[in-house]
Amino acid sequence: MGAETIKRIGILTGGGDCPGLNAVIRAVAKSAMNGGLEVIGIADGYLGLIENRLQPLGWRDVSNILTLGGTILGSCNKANPSRYAVREGDRWVYHDVRDQVVEHYHQAKLDALVVIGGDGTMSGAHTLTDRGVKIIGVPKTIDNDLWGTDVTFGHDTAVATATDALDKIHTTAASHHRVMVVELMGRYAGWLALHAGLASGADVILIPEIPFDLEKVARRCIERRDVGKGFTIIAAGEGAMPVGGEAIVDHVVEDSPDPIRLGGVAKYVADRIEQMTDLDSRAIVLGHVQRGGTPTAFDRILATMFGHHAFELLEAGQFGRLVVQREGRFDSVELAEVADKVRTVPPDCPALQAARAVGTSFGD
Amino acid sequence: MGAETIKRIGILTGGGDCPGLNAVIRAVAKSAMNGGLEVIGIADGYLGLIENRLQPLGWRDVSNILTLGGTILGSCNKANPSRYAVREGDRWVYHDVRDQVVEHYHQAKLDALVVIGGDGTMSGAHTLTDRGVKIIGVPKTIDNDLWGTDVTFGHDTAVATATDALDKIHTTAASHHRVMVVELMGRYAGWLALHAGLASGADVILIPEIPFDLEKVARRCIERRDVGKGFTIIAAGEGAMPVGGEAIVDHVVEDSPDPIRLGGVAKYVADRIEQMTDLDSRAIVLGHVQRGGTPTAFDRILATMFGHHAFELLEAGQFGRLVVQREGRFDSVELAEVADKVRTVPPDCPALQAARAVGTSFGD
Amino acid sequence: MGAETIKRIGILTGGGDCPGLNAVIRAVAKSAMNGGLEVIGIADGYLGLIENRLQPLGWRDVSNILTLGGTILGSCNKANPSRYAVREGDRWVYHDVRDQVVEHYHQAKLDALVVIGGDGTMSGAHTLTDRGVKIIGVPKTIDNDLWGTDVTFGHDTAVATATDALDKIHTTAASHHRVMVVELMGRYAGWLALHAGLASGADVILIPEIPFDLEKVARRCIERRDVGKGFTIIAAGEGAMPVGGEAIVDHVVEDSPDPIRLGGVAKYVADRIEQMTDLDSRAIVLGHVQRGGTPTAFDRILATMFGHHAFELLEAGQFGRLVVQREGRFDSVELAEVADKVRTVPPDCPALQAARAVGTSFGD
Amino acid sequence: MGAETIKRIGILTGGGDCPGLNAVIRAVAKSAMNGGLEVIGIADGYLGLIENRLQPLGWRDVSNILTLGGTILGSCNKANPSRYAVREGDRWVYHDVRDQVVEHYHQAKLDALVVIGGDGTMSGAHTLTDRGVKIIGVPKTIDNDLWGTDVTFGHDTAVATATDALDKIHTTAASHHRVMVVELMGRYAGWLALHAGLASGADVILIPEIPFDLEKVARRCIERRDVGKGFTIIAAGEGAMPVGGEAIVDHVVEDSPDPIRLGGVAKYVADRIEQMTDLDSRAIVLGHVQRGGTPTAFDRILATMFGHHAFELLEAGQFGRLVVQREGRFDSVELAEVADKVRTVPPDCPALQAARAVGTSFGD
Repeated sequence: MGAETIKRIGILTGGGDCPGLNAVIRAVAKSAMNGGLEVIGIADGYLGLIENRLQPLGWRDVSNILTLGGTILGSCNKANPSRYAVREGDRWVYHDVRDQVVEHYHQAKLDALVVIGGDGTMSGAHTLTDRGVKIIGVPKTIDNDLWGTDVTFGHDTAVATATDALDKIHTTAASHHRVMVVELMGRYAGWLALHAGLASGADVILIPEIPFDLEKVARRCIERRDVGKGFTIIAAGEGAMPVGGEAIVDHVVEDSPDPIRLGGVAKYVADRIEQMTDLDSRAIVLGHVQRGGTPTAFDRILATMFGHHAFELLEAGQFGRLVVQREGRFDSVELAEVADKVRTVPPDCPALQAARAVGTSFGD
Repeated sequence: MGAETIKRIGILTGGGDCPGLNAVIRAVAKSAMNGGLEVIGIADGYLGLIENRLQPLGWRDVSNILTLGGTILGSCNKANPSRYAVREGDRWVYHDVRDQVVEHYHQAKLDALVVIGGDGTMSGAHTLTDRGVKIIGVPKTIDNDLWGTDVTFGHDTAVATATDALDKIHTTAASHHRVMVVELMGRYAGWLALHAGLASGADVILIPEIPFDLEKVARRCIERRDVGKGFTIIAAGEGAMPVGGEAIVDHVVEDSPDPIRLGGVAKYVADRIEQMTDLDSRAIVLGHVQRGGTPTAFDRILATMFGHHAFELLEAGQFGRLVVQREGRFDSVELAEVADKVRTVPPDCPALQAARAVGTSFGD
Repeated sequence: MGAETIKRIGILTGGGDCPGLNAVIRAVAKSAMNGGLEVIGIADGYLGLIENRLQPLGWRDVSNILTLGGTILGSCNKANPSRYAVREGDRWVYHDVRDQVVEHYHQAKLDALVVIGGDGTMSGAHTLTDRGVKIIGVPKTIDNDLWGTDVTFGHDTAVATATDALDKIHTTAASHHRVMVVELMGRYAGWLALHAGLASGADVILIPEIPFDLEKVARRCIERRDVGKGFTIIAAGEGAMPVGGEAIVDHVVEDSPDPIRLGGVAKYVADRIEQMTDLDSRAIVLGHVQRGGTPTAFDRILATMFGHHAFELLEAGQFGRLVVQREGRFDSVELAEVADKVRTVPPDCPALQAARAVGTSFGD
Repeated sequence: MGAETIKRIGILTGGGDCPGLNAVIRAVAKSAMNGGLEVIGIADGYLGLIENRLQPLGWRDVSNILTLGGTILGSCNKANPSRYAVREGDRWVYHDVRDQVVEHYHQAKLDALVVIGGDGTMSGAHTLTDRGVKIIGVPKTIDNDLWGTDVTFGHDTAVATATDALDKIHTTAASHHRVMVVELMGRYAGWLALHAGLASGADVILIPEIPFDLEKVARRCIERRDVGKGFTIIAAGEGAMPVGGEAIVDHVVEDSPDPIRLGGVAKYVADRIEQMTDLDSRAIVLGHVQRGGTPTAFDRILATMFGHHAFELLEAGQFGRLVVQREGRFDSVELAEVADKVRTVPPDCPALQAARAVGTSFGD
């Protein structure tokens, strides 16, 4: 089925905040408008389709948004069409609202949807393609862990922000001869901690893929002190875990659509190091700062190219697919293929090997 | 007693890390060397005088350090000459080591000391002037709360870092319709939260000087939602406290030279807001990032002028004094005068009034 | 005459671009709206009053503009009410259009104007107060050279941008053993070159207030090479001039409202140095980059306080005055007082003296 | 021949300044030292080999340099071993000094050289491999135009710097309704102008690969004005040229190793636009700022991986080769292969196509 039948498209952004979302929205909308299509903005991810909050997007709406963090459309973490979390009294109840979504999609006379989001959003998209909704997915995650693509926009900005924080903390650590443990995002994959750690010259990098041995981490701190470097910088992904242990859970929210919150690996490591050595240690949790801000030039370019390629798929009538970049080329894969898969850091990753070569410890 | 007798000076930096320390060291050292003096660098604050770790500083040592965060001399939080904390077995014991300090001072043939530090460091300096050590103090605090001076270097950089973080968090808050509570430094005075909050357009600013009413804070969040702004940004100084309550203590370290650690006001406020409203809330603790990094141009200039003015006091033989800037002019005050005083935000502070005028809530 | 009669005010921005303009607009508008006033935005400086282009400003218009460079109202360099430049055929003709301006002012039922601008804009404002227009001026210049105030918003951002460029050029100069001459803004006053030069540790600073001797500048470059530092960084204000010479005029635009364009001092100095020594030299002209960009936290705070103080003058009914900051306090002066005066760098300026003390040459 | 014979290596950096040089030096040196090799730093590119200025590099020398712009080894543009430019009287004479270079190489008991540089430096390297010097090349160019590799370190930082400048200029252009033409580096290839233009949303991008038609550029400016956007941003690579014309030569230095200096395309375009339309136009030349500064996180990672891969080639005994990255993988090519070839922007480049899709004009 060709693009000749496509006259009007909707755009939505789902899941957590990510720098470059607006750049994708702009690229899809401008490409589409230049190609003669009408563009509709859907508010707050799938929630806008559930609650029928849709508005036309014009030139003015997508002008001057290239440098803005966040998403002009709004987003939502809890609105999966096949499992929509609603608070009823003191607990959450889950509904399948796909009928509603499809009805609003047709009511608005949409011929296709461009869905920008992460793993959860793409699973949601996949359940809609089964109902005949024509969808093109654009991958989004600051964690860079979406399966099927080598790179996602937003990651470079998150790495830049985390690197900047690590650079700043470096001076305090050095002046005070301290061990500083900095917790970065990354539940399932360590890309962010690996890249920011490598970029800032962290002495130790802890990632979910490589369980760490606290003895070895402590020994590295001591060794550094013994050669006259009183400080050690440790970059830790939030999903990093000790050998034989489990990821550190900050707290569990009873009866919630998102019950488990990781967090606390930095405090865990800093406390143990302080006990095992006589070194002054501190934990820092960088948190949401990593998700926000003006995208880097790299991410603005990448996001624009992702958005443009989504439009090319639209024109080619290739629906039910996710835009990806692999081996330096843009391509696409089936939405079904990416569901529930995480791209983790492989042992032969060049960045990992380069980090080891310059002397970085992974605690293993 | 004139500067004609001054041939050789020592420099030390005490207390927490602060952007611009190296700029002061460079300005003092270059001014002094251009004036024909010898300059000795003292390692790790008073600890270097206690342990006799002193080294000559030359042109090469102070070249290219203007942009560096931290201090090339190192610092120490625990080494007050009249109350030096030493770990003995499982507890801390305090010693008066002023004799030792004075002995090392004379041994090194120092004619004067330039001491760069905060309140604690200046108290230490004061106890040494009583023993005949000629000292000139340079005030240092990112909190801007040192009594006697209108402004201290490092504060502008800390405000810039905090503002940048608040700007980044803004996009996430807006995209997800969340209440974001960001905890900034400031135990006793709210300058950093006030300035960063004003600079970033925070909706609510909480500072130690103005106890906050949680009801009013929650109401502001609700009011914003009701006019279509689903998000609220709250900048909270770590020493902010509820009306009738106390500053929130994160934990108490038993038997420590620094027993009480504040922290947790952001989590306290975020949790309460979430309970009192149906708004999704998150806490972020910015932490040590605020202390580090390359100083802003403003702080490099200010630090250089502070350092230069310290040299002018040296030349004028005016010892036992602290360099200050008041009403736009450099001046000096007695070290004795500033001890144990904190400069808090007064109710008629122009920044505070401007914040109120543009609609910022202080929770009162 | 009290503020009780003020119901509706206009805001305009005149002259060159300056970071912080939107922060002033926001502060005036929000303060005024919170005070129950109506606010009208005037497009493109006085041009909007001449051509009657006025629009109400509401909460939405001034939301989210605190971090934006430029001015949401637009500006214009050529529209002085008493001397409005209009192109007629191949030449410029000047008109007195004050009657028109006053008519549009009354037509829009404005009770007062807040005029944000530099020297030219304030001269224009002064000629309107004579006709009964109630004006409060807010000073604006990245050059920091407006008479009557110690500081103007925008300058800190310009200094930060120039310092960042000088920092970047430093590494190239050092790697290639070159003399780099960087031309910064500042026709009549050297504040920008002085502050950015001091903040970046420039080896030589050339400013309009201190005519430079090329021999001395060249000698400094040679001396540095001879002690093993093959490179020299020179920060030059565009109005800097050789001893006995004149400011370097890039070109003269015949028959123009702005006939003389300075520029070229960097190339002049770099070429002469290369002739006088065997050192490789390069000129860089930073240009308009200095005027743009997101204001620093410092400038956002300062601009907000300036805007708020303008509102306080409005409330107090003190018209025909310019908001100033002197010796750390907000105050105001007569518009008439500031006309045609420039605040230059005095010989006893602390920044100048600090620069000399650390060894910076001013070519004198 | 295996790496078992390699005991001692030299490192040199040649050609223009580039962010990330120190990150490569650090990665090569740390990898080599961790692998048991000795490392010698060669001063000022080939000049150090000609003049026998070599020094051992230790852990301390390569510590804390990851974030530094420039090169700690120094560089030189004029020292090609087979064509070494020497000033004799009033002219330049060229010498083949390869014998001298090879002698010093053997004298220092070097077993291999890591040569970091651009096209000219690699040509020089190639002429030395013919004499038995074992060389591994690491490609360096902010222009990203080295043949054989998809990406070079330094380019991302240059794009970030240029994008930041374009962002800043945007606000001035918009406030004053001006055409702003910004000249960026790129003599033979338009990667920098293309990427920075795309990242900043420039309205027009001019690159050497696509001759521009001034009529079309002017028309775009007029069209924008007619839909209410009074300003236009034009990003121009310095080698961009009009249809049927030639690259604009700023000046020719008679009898020089580097006789032709491009430059002036921005002024050329701005002047013509002002003549052809009634729009106020300005030219800005960004210049050397693009070469300097702290490398971005991306470039620090890339440079570290390039340096590490150079060490892997050393270990594998694969000499006479250049490290490259192609299709997302590290690999190597013969030095001979890359000589005198430039990688230009192809018509089907995804970034170029994305720029066209969002409406950017290339003046064609």
